[in-house]
Amino acid sequence: MTTQAGASRLAVMNFLNEVAGDFPNAISLASGRPAEAFFDLDHWLEAIPLYQRELATRWGVTRADAGRRLAQYGRTNGLINELVAAQLKLDEGVQTRGEHIVIGAGCQEALALCLLSLCRAPNEVVLARDPTYIGMTGVADLHGIEIVPLYAKDDGLADELRSVTERLGNEGKRARAFYLIPEFDNPTGAVLSQLVRQELLDVCAEQRILVLEDNPYGMFRYEGERVPPMYALDRSGSVIYLFTYSKTLCPAVRIGGAVVPDTLFGDAAAARALVAELGERKSFLTVNTSQLNQALIGGVLLAENGTLQRLVTPQRDHYRKNRDLMLAALAAEFGGSGEGIRWNRPEGGFFLTMDLPFRFGQEEVLQCARERHVIPMPLSFFSLSGICQESIRLAFSNVPSAQIAEGVARLGQFILQYEEVCHAAI
Amino acid sequence: MTTQAGASRLAVMNFLNEVAGDFPNAISLASGRPAEAFFDLDHWLEAIPLYQRELATRWGVTRADAGRRLAQYGRTNGLINELVAAQLKLDEGVQTRGEHIVIGAGCQEALALCLLSLCRAPNEVVLARDPTYIGMTGVADLHGIEIVPLYAKDDGLADELRSVTERLGNEGKRARAFYLIPEFDNPTGAVLSQLVRQELLDVCAEQRILVLEDNPYGMFRYEGERVPPMYALDRSGSVIYLFTYSKTLCPAVRIGGAVVPDTLFGDAAAARALVAELGERKSFLTVNTSQLNQALIGGVLLAENGTLQRLVTPQRDHYRKNRDLMLAALAAEFGGSGEGIRWNRPEGGFFLTMDLPFRFGQEEVLQCARERHVIPMPLSFFSLSGICQESIRLAFSNVPSAQIAEGVARLGQFILQYEEVCHAAI
Repeated sequence: MTTQAGASRLAVMNFLNEVAGDFPNAISLASGRPAEAFFDLDHWLEAIPLYQRELATRWGVTRADAGRRLAQYGRTNGLINELVAAQLKLDEGVQTRGEHIVIGAGCQEALALCLLSLCRAPNEVVLARDPTYIGMTGVADLHGIEIVPLYAKDDGLADELRSVTERLGNEGKRARAFYLIPEFDNPTGAVLSQLVRQELLDVCAEQRILVLEDNPYGMFRYEGERVPPMYALDRSGSVIYLFTYSKTLCPAVRIGGAVVPDTLFGDAAAARALVAELGERKSFLTVNTSQLNQALIGGVLLAENGTLQRLVTPQRDHYRKNRDLMLAALAAEFGGSGEGIRWNRPEGGFFLTMDLPFRFGQEEVLQCARERHVIPMPLSFFSLSGICQESIRLAFSNVPSAQIAEGVARLGQFILQYEEVCHAAI
Repeated sequence: MTTQAGASRLAVMNFLNEVAGDFPNAISLASGRPAEAFFDLDHWLEAIPLYQRELATRWGVTRADAGRRLAQYGRTNGLINELVAAQLKLDEGVQTRGEHIVIGAGCQEALALCLLSLCRAPNEVVLARDPTYIGMTGVADLHGIEIVPLYAKDDGLADELRSVTERLGNEGKRARAFYLIPEFDNPTGAVLSQLVRQELLDVCAEQRILVLEDNPYGMFRYEGERVPPMYALDRSGSVIYLFTYSKTLCPAVRIGGAVVPDTLFGDAAAARALVAELGERKSFLTVNTSQLNQALIGGVLLAENGTLQRLVTPQRDHYRKNRDLMLAALAAEFGGSGEGIRWNRPEGGFFLTMDLPFRFGQEEVLQCARERHVIPMPLSFFSLSGICQESIRLAFSNVPSAQIAEGVARLGQFILQYEEVCHAAI
């Protein structure tokens, strides 16, 4: 059942697509897509035979037969699970075995499967910080899963988590999952410190809440010390790790997935049962993930000796450059500005956020696109409860480097004009 | 929420997989997969550049840029919709436009999206003949959608449809959809006559029930006159047509979809709203269908001048041969048998069904696999209410031609022995 919030979130996403369509020459700082310059699909397709050869050996058949079996239906939970496990260990410090991985048609499917499996009864809810990723709120809303927002800053988050969980208990509800992007959050770009991660893990273990740790941007750290994923810090079986190849390779492969821990709060049978349930649900949603696409990922992983570091390095450099260009442009444009204009300096990822001294919503996007030919993303679009009305998300991942300064300058003109109008109105 | 029936259906499917795994040398007459000999993935991959070139022209960009945009996220409802529309018209007599098509990660996703969109309230139910396809019952069960079975033979089906719909109305329920495979049904292999299709369409238009017409086997007719799809016969906007490339090309492409009619019962806005809702749900389940896989289908369709007839012809010949081998083996084995042993002669598709003079369930499958090294599929596995206890489905699509006679002979030995034991016990 679509809740009202769900319907309106869909409406704003459609609205943004329409704005982009209506003003095709506007500079978009709204799209958090990966940069297309690094998509090397033709080359990656050539890696498929490598994986085919590997399969032929594994199955003891000819390469041609392996190719035909590859083209058939296949194992619901995936074919390349062991290669993925090895890559997650090398690149992300996530230790698991293939049989605890469910490969999805993109990470979104894995996230949907997790939410549907964990929150089955109407009183089973998912927790999330407000604002949070639209893909999570969308799937929860569409399936009538209640999302309970958390508002505390990082240092108060564990306390809020405990008190919200207890309040829910008193209401006859049960917090089953806590959705988080601890590393370069979408939409905020923020990173949770190791201390906060530990605090959250303690509460989750105590309250038996499964963290859904989504980590699409983990390989894109530009500076600062790496913080281990919550999955790697976890000692009690309270983290499901969500991964994707949409950012490291490209979205069109539509391969991502979920890593279920060895135990759920110490219970190995419960972990196996969850893997099985994810697979059963998947078998009736998409049957199995395209083995052609899995073979492409498998071939690339074989060709790259199991790690994506070599492929990611130039991308990381590019995104770092874009971030720096955006930070420099923001400093040049707004450095002398008065109160109310602030932005963060993300150590990685695709986005930063900016606070403005006025409300920036749907009407302002339209005005900005029409009059200044630049499209930012209101942060309120990601809000669970209508907060963040005066903030925007600026994505630097998919905007041409040469347009960043101009985009920020146009935004500056809009903001200046808007403030003047506001002042004049007073 | 998983209903009891849903859980047990999952259990039997797992059981069948286990039997196949435990007895790898048994001849399987249970698998209704397409024959792998025709999977030509390496060759089809070479068609991708054709589609890339087409995109480059459409978008006015270089071929390399088109390739990069192809590798990006894309339109939720699909990229190759116009090519699919042209193919459906040529090959299946289904007239539509690209914007009324939703491309899914396999037909199963499209079916799930349709059921979730149509049956949102607890009193909105889906109708299906008993027995029916497990992919439909599985997704309905997993999402708490009630399935109401119909039992009548073809000539009484429209009457039963009307009376069941009226009974449901009295119970405060509403039949929103009627799932059907009118052409070479899975599991029965049966075809609905044009007269029955018309009768059903009349009742559906009158009662405002949307037919979900699933047609995976339509291009595999071996003899007899072609019956138009219900979608083509429909005049009132009461049929959603489900298509797949898993059988005509191969399952690993995971491309299928739904065609929404121009109007829903005369209401064009309602049809557009349904297309939009399918897309919104899809965006939160799988984001969009792999554009790599869509490009492969697109390229093949371009290379084949928009029709799959040339590719399907040798497959159809092969399946016809297998069906004939199975019919001949059955006649040789059971032709002189007494009462209680009967089978149908399907005019196309992948399966036939056989009635036995005794119950054939899970225990009998195991015994058959262990003692006679052949695995048939109990028809009761497809039942919504535990009927068809004495029938089996025999698939001839994916068994090597050379094994068919031997498989049927082994089945004959099992049946003979089983009957003797039964008689001795009396």
